[in-house]
Amino acid sequence: MALRVQKYGGTSVADIDRINHVADRVQKASDQGDKVVVVLSAMSGVTDSLIRLANQATEKPDKKELDVLLATGEQTTAALLAMILKSRGYKAKSFLGFQAGIQTDKASGRARIVDIDAKNIQSALENGNIAVVAGFQGADIDGAITTLGRGGSDTSAVAIASSLKADVCEIFTDVEGVYTTDPRICSSARKIHRISYDEMLEMAILGGAKVLQIRSVEFAKKFNVPVHVRSSFSEEEGTMVVNESSDMESVIVSGVTCDMNEARITLKRVPDQPGISAKIFTPLADAEISVDMIIQNTRSGGETDLTFTVTKDDFDRAKEISGKVAREVGAVEVLTAEEIAKVSVIGLGMKSHSGVAATMFEALASENINIRLISTSEIRISCVILAKYAELAVRTLHSAFGLDQEK
Amino acid sequence: MALRVQKYGGTSVADIDRINHVADRVQKASDQGDKVVVVLSAMSGVTDSLIRLANQATEKPDKKELDVLLATGEQTTAALLAMILKSRGYKAKSFLGFQAGIQTDKASGRARIVDIDAKNIQSALENGNIAVVAGFQGADIDGAITTLGRGGSDTSAVAIASSLKADVCEIFTDVEGVYTTDPRICSSARKIHRISYDEMLEMAILGGAKVLQIRSVEFAKKFNVPVHVRSSFSEEEGTMVVNESSDMESVIVSGVTCDMNEARITLKRVPDQPGISAKIFTPLADAEISVDMIIQNTRSGGETDLTFTVTKDDFDRAKEISGKVAREVGAVEVLTAEEIAKVSVIGLGMKSHSGVAATMFEALASENINIRLISTSEIRISCVILAKYAELAVRTLHSAFGLDQEK
Repeated sequence: MALRVQKYGGTSVADIDRINHVADRVQKASDQGDKVVVVLSAMSGVTDSLIRLANQATEKPDKKELDVLLATGEQTTAALLAMILKSRGYKAKSFLGFQAGIQTDKASGRARIVDIDAKNIQSALENGNIAVVAGFQGADIDGAITTLGRGGSDTSAVAIASSLKADVCEIFTDVEGVYTTDPRICSSARKIHRISYDEMLEMAILGGAKVLQIRSVEFAKKFNVPVHVRSSFSEEEGTMVVNESSDMESVIVSGVTCDMNEARITLKRVPDQPGISAKIFTPLADAEISVDMIIQNTRSGGETDLTFTVTKDDFDRAKEISGKVAREVGAVEVLTAEEIAKVSVIGLGMKSHSGVAATMFEALASENINIRLISTSEIRISCVILAKYAELAVRTLHSAFGLDQEK
Repeated sequence: MALRVQKYGGTSVADIDRINHVADRVQKASDQGDKVVVVLSAMSGVTDSLIRLANQATEKPDKKELDVLLATGEQTTAALLAMILKSRGYKAKSFLGFQAGIQTDKASGRARIVDIDAKNIQSALENGNIAVVAGFQGADIDGAITTLGRGGSDTSAVAIASSLKADVCEIFTDVEGVYTTDPRICSSARKIHRISYDEMLEMAILGGAKVLQIRSVEFAKKFNVPVHVRSSFSEEEGTMVVNESSDMESVIVSGVTCDMNEARITLKRVPDQPGISAKIFTPLADAEISVDMIIQNTRSGGETDLTFTVTKDDFDRAKEISGKVAREVGAVEVLTAEEIAKVSVIGLGMKSHSGVAATMFEALASENINIRLISTSEIRISCVILAKYAELAVRTLHSAFGLDQEK
């Protein structure tokens, strides 16, 4: 008998028909003798409609009250699934965030879980109930409703799984699992069967958290919760996200990602003096613009070129601030490029294998793709290239690191 | 500076535009220096759509989970109004039922308030906030969400007003107040300026609680909360529902009501023996059918005729049970009539004035309207007549008791 936490995303609970399918799966697990905690998102589209409603009410909706409004989405699906399970003769009980004991900080709209007191869920399970929890929400220390941000239900599920010491946290979604790369770009992409938390984190950060919310992976890593990402539309096994093990390092590269959401800014011929970087990056930080890659090339004559990337959303503001700073510090000019892509290879194996960077650069060179910027972490190498080469680069790297599906 | 509890019903918060109008009114009260607690219903139609959704999910939705689902309706309007008030520069804070300290029993779907701990609202008011409370909902002693039944937001408002010792509880609705009779039937109906709790209770019971939920009136009476029923669409004063005062008795009849929702069942020639009534009414009570009027006429020869009325919803079941009982107790036949109306006159003045019944019977007789059943309370006389005479009877009585508007 296992204790399973199952999380179903928005497309998995899109309508009553889909919620009935979720009930089928939950029922199956329960019939096997497993204890089941179900964590639900809002029906797909509902959160967006609620945000539209709030924007109709006022241009800048108060964040605390927006949390109260948005929390209704998950409350609805939790109540519906619980009543379906009960009508099928199962004991079931819905829990809102505060009832599930999910305590968060006060950061409305992007609250972080600070504590979980799962005693209510625990006692419901002990009484033979299936616990159905509204994801995405919690309450702060004063009992005010909070929400955890986009994809927050993933984090709810992992946090509850950790608190209950569940055997597995299953994340049911509309894809089959985590792939070696985006199958829409590369038809030979393969599903990854096991991946480490760290690799998953890099994939999630670079892929815009399409499969798993980044925080949920951090949480899973911190508390060592085995996460199973799988499809709610099939019975196939998906991807296990687990602690790194020695055999994982035999695979040099686990995946290739591509991020089209960055833009590049270069300050040409900045005087090469101590403190110059702070002068440039402090105003950006003050404007809450987060800078991703930073590269500095030393020129001759006491000057340097400074290049960095920001998300496209922040690009216009970053360009304006950079222009101002450039004049102040005496840089000669500001160059920008929006049409760039960051392709990355990720793999635990890099820790123990040399030559990964060389293979990557050679593969790109073989297709005449010029590399503009390079950055690395212990388990990742990223190259910025022109956006028009993005798909070609992904396919080339996927093949170069032996990730292509066997035909 | 007064403390006002304002409750707005579904049509008053039907859309963002209407909620903005509510914000205008709340703002005005606040600008006058009053402390304001706003209690809201769900947008009109929302509760019904949620019930439809639940019925789509399962034929017989679990009542506890239905409460969780329905509670989202008021949560939505409370969050929206609070964010609108905040965007206008007012301090405001929304409260769900449990946050407002509304504790109920466990009767899902028709819970009764057992206690209110208004300390959260109190402290929000002391900090200069407008408190916006989701009506219709509370929590039981275990923290499970409950709802108070149709019109429950009225009761939320009166209960909060009583707990806070508010100066007035204003019930904003889509009518101008309480009328001497239904203006759709009788064009000379007048708005009543002051009415006692007891009269209001009789009006609410007979009129199907269209203006105020019956429980809210009971609550107001018990805790002596002055209730002001008024329109959210105009600035006109409405009807004050207050404790009875000596001057009220100078008006003999305050209102005339008509209830078309009952049906009549007669058991003819029942043996006139002790215990026979119990034999007839116990099975009806067991079937949760509530009987309104009961009249027994003694016949000669140790037999009696027994007539009673039930609501039309219960009529078919009541007829079936009565038929069975009739055979058991040896009644000769069962007569039924669905096309009946109960017209009533209500007035505190009846306590001190004689001749009200005579005036009523004469007025009906003058129009050749035959009375089938009569029942009375201390402040009410009701006559059952054929349904086709209902409107004529109402107009006749309205005029006979001097209630017609002065032209």
